[in-house]
Amino acid sequence: MKASITVTLRNGILDPQGSAVMNALNSMDAACVKNVRIGKLIEIEIDESDPAVAKETLAKMCDRLLANPVMENYHIEFQTG
Amino acid sequence: MKASITVTLRNGILDPQGSAVMNALNSMDAACVKNVRIGKLIEIEIDESDPAVAKETLAKMCDRLLANPVMENYHIEFQTG
Repeated sequence: MKASITVTLRNGILDPQGSAVMNALNSMDAACVKNVRIGKLIEIEIDESDPAVAKETLAKMCDRLLANPVMENYHIEFQTG
Repeated sequence: MKASITVTLRNGILDPQGSAVMNALNSMDAACVKNVRIGKLIEIEIDESDPAVAKETLAKMCDRLLANPVMENYHIEFQTG
């Protein structure tokens, strides 16, 4: 079963990487970019066919390794097909 | 207008970061993880109300700065609301 996990910084947490990218984009092109936040996308394939069990396993993985729950949110989505 | 851009490595391009995460997950938990690929998620807010123009602008930004077209694919999705 394939899943996409997106890990994003919580609101209020500064994102210096995002600010740098925003400044670069605005200096490159027409200054139309108002905000940029950068996160991670983790595509994971696990050997589990029950979606409920898979979701629980993935949530545990996020809490323990993939995301920092103090300053990041995560969202788990299963890919169909 | 808000958009989410996902940047992922093309098929066939080695992903050492993904392999490291896979090994860490398998040594931590039950060894049920078969594959991990890591990409970037860029949430961007631009000052443009026409979706077609916005998409074109964002594609240009991806080609020039946000993604490396030689080894990465990107996908642009607009957030509703």
